[in-house]
Amino acid sequence: MDACPFPESEYLDRVARAQALMQEHRLDALLLTAPPNFGYFTGFETQFWESPTRPWFVLVPRQGTCLLVVPEIGAPALARSWIGAVHTWPAPRPADDGVSLLADTIRNLERRYGRIGMEMGRESVVRMPLVDLAVLRDRIRGVDLVDGSPAIWALRALKSPLEVDCIRRSCQAVGRAFEALPATLARGRTERQAARALTLDILTRGVDAVPFLACASGPGGYPEIISPPSDRPLEDGDVLFLDVGATTRGYFCDFDRNYALGRIPDAALRAHEAVWRATEAGIQAARPGRTTSQVWQAMMDVLESAGMRGNNVGRLGHGLGRQLTEPPSNMPGDDTVLEPGMVITIEPGMEYAEGRMLVHEEDVHITEDGPDLLTPRAPREMWRIS
Amino acid sequence: MDACPFPESEYLDRVARAQALMQEHRLDALLLTAPPNFGYFTGFETQFWESPTRPWFVLVPRQGTCLLVVPEIGAPALARSWIGAVHTWPAPRPADDGVSLLADTIRNLERRYGRIGMEMGRESVVRMPLVDLAVLRDRIRGVDLVDGSPAIWALRALKSPLEVDCIRRSCQAVGRAFEALPATLARGRTERQAARALTLDILTRGVDAVPFLACASGPGGYPEIISPPSDRPLEDGDVLFLDVGATTRGYFCDFDRNYALGRIPDAALRAHEAVWRATEAGIQAARPGRTTSQVWQAMMDVLESAGMRGNNVGRLGHGLGRQLTEPPSNMPGDDTVLEPGMVITIEPGMEYAEGRMLVHEEDVHITEDGPDLLTPRAPREMWRIS
Repeated sequence: MDACPFPESEYLDRVARAQALMQEHRLDALLLTAPPNFGYFTGFETQFWESPTRPWFVLVPRQGTCLLVVPEIGAPALARSWIGAVHTWPAPRPADDGVSLLADTIRNLERRYGRIGMEMGRESVVRMPLVDLAVLRDRIRGVDLVDGSPAIWALRALKSPLEVDCIRRSCQAVGRAFEALPATLARGRTERQAARALTLDILTRGVDAVPFLACASGPGGYPEIISPPSDRPLEDGDVLFLDVGATTRGYFCDFDRNYALGRIPDAALRAHEAVWRATEAGIQAARPGRTTSQVWQAMMDVLESAGMRGNNVGRLGHGLGRQLTEPPSNMPGDDTVLEPGMVITIEPGMEYAEGRMLVHEEDVHITEDGPDLLTPRAPREMWRIS
Repeated sequence: MDACPFPESEYLDRVARAQALMQEHRLDALLLTAPPNFGYFTGFETQFWESPTRPWFVLVPRQGTCLLVVPEIGAPALARSWIGAVHTWPAPRPADDGVSLLADTIRNLERRYGRIGMEMGRESVVRMPLVDLAVLRDRIRGVDLVDGSPAIWALRALKSPLEVDCIRRSCQAVGRAFEALPATLARGRTERQAARALTLDILTRGVDAVPFLACASGPGGYPEIISPPSDRPLEDGDVLFLDVGATTRGYFCDFDRNYALGRIPDAALRAHEAVWRATEAGIQAARPGRTTSQVWQAMMDVLESAGMRGNNVGRLGHGLGRQLTEPPSNMPGDDTVLEPGMVITIEPGMEYAEGRMLVHEEDVHITEDGPDLLTPRAPREMWRIS
């Protein structure tokens, strides 16, 4: 039990909710292979996922408890999880890396619908060799492996109070580090130096890891928001952009901050004010009963009236939790109805001149009482680096 | 060009080698979706892979230059890569997230074998929704999507001098941090505190990121080597184990160190001596013409004569590069013949008493002149924390 970050009741609740969804989606089980789902049910968090050599499987049946089919290297750790029982094989064994053991386990499941859901759909990846998946299909004739992602996302979209607390802790630690950054930076330092200073400070503030950091800078704005920091020195008139996904017990924050280097152009200041106000509108729209497309529209009303040219991000925020980004998306056509317990980012951005974009982001927990802002709100005036 | 870590000639060499392998494997192209392969050909390194929302594709055709099919959010960054031309679609667009654009691009490829290789095999993952992969298959009738991983691994197993240099830099930075750790630690500190101190120090020594850190401790040894650090306080008689994968320009080191807390049992000291000597034997065996199973045997001869009970890791080292672990495996049945340019880890471990394991690891570059040790060699006597 000491290996799990939450009490056993948390996992039992997750399994119970999953099992209700399996009835609704006519699934006999969920077969999960990807780190966010494996950890969601087992409580086992590890960076060993960086090694793709061995697949790991958790089966959540329609009734009863979870079944673990994992490589021997994971047996001692998983035996300490709330699930307890572990089926293992000596891995790596490329000729049969868990496939026979998994097929046997699946054949022993009670069969009602003849369907098992896997991570085959939206924003999902099956973490096992597809040649092995084909063998598995052959070995479990009579059971179809189907797309389980609608059930998985319905489950994970609603965060428990413990999950929200972890996201809030990530947000607060990174928010304090963002605020402290200007005091340690000066013109002439590079993006890479700024990013490293920020990362080191974040790690001292109690998060577990910083798996995501993007950095951009340029005169009055930047053309994109997903690259790593470069050796570009920060100059007068630049806007420096830093976007961070740090984790606490496997739960991400995802938000950014913009910094003004000395005096930035008036057009950039006006665009910044518009994006700040769009964020405000997005936060206020993030309430139960509203749709993600309505949240998007609330932001777009502000951005378009401020002369938005475009936005290569393709949406204005998204779900957040055990992944840096999760469904839903704040965009037209995604008409997800917000419910208490969801956590989304509010991420308006606009290109106000060729190659000059400004993007803001905050993280919001949807509650009956309205938006619960998990991030310390960005200041209306950009922090300055002198 | 400034977005790529290496000169264009490096990427042209990779493409030329890939194209020779495609002839051999009867492939018209490689279609690649996973971060290690995408970055290998494009030079684009980003932590944005943490967001699973949008798939990214690079097509390496049998002749000619690479084709990029990427979401709009990636266009500005990829336009700066050595490839230049970028095909984009407005993403996210769940109803058609790049599938039509990718199918059009594939249909325009010159067809000779009617086969395109994907990351379907060993130690590989296809990073796109499988429901979309099924649609893609339907849209490119006459072209089979097959397992391209034998060609991919044959390509990536041989590292260029620039690649080896990056791995060496990761190894040296982490090695210095490992050596400096005892001075900052004392009994009573927790695993978590030790791991955080080490991570912070590594980041100040010039690596880009620390995606992998595992930690274990226990009286005279530990039962497993893949868990994150816990709040367990370090006590007299413990062995503390830390294993780190840090990256430079996308290239990992992967090695561990063991520390003695005060006085540890004689049996642990004897086992440690055996594992150190097994490492020495493994390094000496890592020469062109030897097989990975021979390297394994060289280590096993030492471990078994020292009373090895078992080892839940399942092998004694593996390939290393853009992934923390890559083929081949040092184990029976993996008869990969070592060639100059390969980089492998030498990772002997033994359980010498129930639940008490000791594992060592070093990283070696195979050269005509013999083993080129990339890591500073672990001391024969464990570093002590007092």
